[in-house]
Amino acid sequence: MDDKERTNELNRIALKFSEFYKGKVGILPKVPITSLKDFSYWYTPGVAAVSMAVNHDVEEVFNLTGKWNSVAIITDGTRVLGLGNVGPEASLPVMEGKSMIFNFLGGVNAVPLPIRVKEREDFVHVAKALEPSFGAYNLEDIESPKCFFVLEELQKELSIPVWHDDQLGTACITLAGLLNSLKVVQKKPEDAKVVLFGAGAANIATAHLLTAAGFKIKNIVIADSKGILEPNRSDVDSLMFTNPWKYSLAMETNGERLSGEEEGAFKGADIVVSASKSDPSTLRKEWISTMNEDAIVFALANPLPEIWPS
Amino acid sequence: MDDKERTNELNRIALKFSEFYKGKVGILPKVPITSLKDFSYWYTPGVAAVSMAVNHDVEEVFNLTGKWNSVAIITDGTRVLGLGNVGPEASLPVMEGKSMIFNFLGGVNAVPLPIRVKEREDFVHVAKALEPSFGAYNLEDIESPKCFFVLEELQKELSIPVWHDDQLGTACITLAGLLNSLKVVQKKPEDAKVVLFGAGAANIATAHLLTAAGFKIKNIVIADSKGILEPNRSDVDSLMFTNPWKYSLAMETNGERLSGEEEGAFKGADIVVSASKSDPSTLRKEWISTMNEDAIVFALANPLPEIWPS
Repeated sequence: MDDKERTNELNRIALKFSEFYKGKVGILPKVPITSLKDFSYWYTPGVAAVSMAVNHDVEEVFNLTGKWNSVAIITDGTRVLGLGNVGPEASLPVMEGKSMIFNFLGGVNAVPLPIRVKEREDFVHVAKALEPSFGAYNLEDIESPKCFFVLEELQKELSIPVWHDDQLGTACITLAGLLNSLKVVQKKPEDAKVVLFGAGAANIATAHLLTAAGFKIKNIVIADSKGILEPNRSDVDSLMFTNPWKYSLAMETNGERLSGEEEGAFKGADIVVSASKSDPSTLRKEWISTMNEDAIVFALANPLPEIWPS
Repeated sequence: MDDKERTNELNRIALKFSEFYKGKVGILPKVPITSLKDFSYWYTPGVAAVSMAVNHDVEEVFNLTGKWNSVAIITDGTRVLGLGNVGPEASLPVMEGKSMIFNFLGGVNAVPLPIRVKEREDFVHVAKALEPSFGAYNLEDIESPKCFFVLEELQKELSIPVWHDDQLGTACITLAGLLNSLKVVQKKPEDAKVVLFGAGAANIATAHLLTAAGFKIKNIVIADSKGILEPNRSDVDSLMFTNPWKYSLAMETNGERLSGEEEGAFKGADIVVSASKSDPSTLRKEWISTMNEDAIVFALANPLPEIWPS
């Protein structure tokens, strides 16, 4: 089977299984129910005492309910996997998958929660309204730059942790991988020249996390389909309004003021983190060959990487 | 143990159990996960095919995800049990209890979902945004008359079933009980004189359902703490604006134009449905004794009924 056949076969089975099981997660009682008497504790009249205890001290909600271990997996369905804006319903299979993974690997009660909102302010509004039910939020598959606004606002306004998987999750795992890779090749974060290929949610968050972890912001060069990001690139002025997060990186990264086509970013680089187009011809072999010795290449696109290892 | 001691004991155990289990329901995978391969079907890359199938035909979301069997249990925490407006966090133990019951008795995946909203329009707005994730809504413990507005708006604007437990649930079970009771005493719905004691969400919905089921609206008399509801009662004009649902019943019920203290409603009645104050002295024995032979008394208050059977 070649790659295409293998993908077709996977798709066929995924559809067949999804139709058979009709949902990947289920809700079950986690308390004993052995007789009608138990309903007197878990429901009426006993539950009134529990509600009053929370009403008396709202922090008790973490002790007396499942809030402590509940995570909402929220998306507006605007940037689902590599598929783009497929809408909230079409994002549900993915959010259910995430819920399954959270539960299976982490024992966390994660509720898949696609919502139908258009404006970024409305996303924040709806997510704020849901805060009482959850102990944390995992944002998923929200288009950039909306996702930056939403994450910042919710982190500012809510008292529970808020995490955007495609920013913080990807940045976190990328940093971990890079720190280990650098040890293998005996280089140091503060000396490493990094190309971030693609300037979406993942790489913008990665730029910030790498900087916080000791990489030098001047040693980071961001490149996307329009070439190397730098203060004089033709689209930078408009970015100030459409994507201030990318704009500020255009100002702060790229200490050498490289410019032009994306391939120019690779020369002498130690690391490339690609979060770009899911196609093995996105990164060219000849670009990689201009990098420093022991170059580290992270090709993160999904389902197909931007370049094959061999 | 007397009633008070028994209640205290129940409360003590309910609090202790709630602190021990920290949540009454949990989320679990309902699909087999036996190897990494399974993640290729349930998550990436297979899930992309499932998402695209839903994107192509949004109705497929009912076949390929858990939406078909998922219910959101939504409240704003404004009228929780008999406790009143305790807030969304303090409603969570009750919503979790409902979720547990839905799952245990009906196999339904019910997500407890208290939300923090003030305005009734905002309640509708947030609930509309959540529609993609659920196959139905169960509204719970929303104060009257807000609950009437919310139910009507959501039923009008959403394409999934919306049910308000305290209206439709109570009305439904009350009708079922009344139809059976009437058979026992050999009376007919169309002849029965009915007192609805209390004019909150439950009895307003019950008035409508009884009428739809063959009871005569002119034979229904509604009484509350201000006396018998009739077109000339002093608060009726203001009801037109504050509670049009109660207002229209003031116009349509009570064909005999009874007026005055609530006790006057009972004389010659066949049925009393009380959805009023949780206190066994709410309904007086002497009122009941003025009812017709084979009187049917439904005292629905919770946890204590409005009158003891004996």
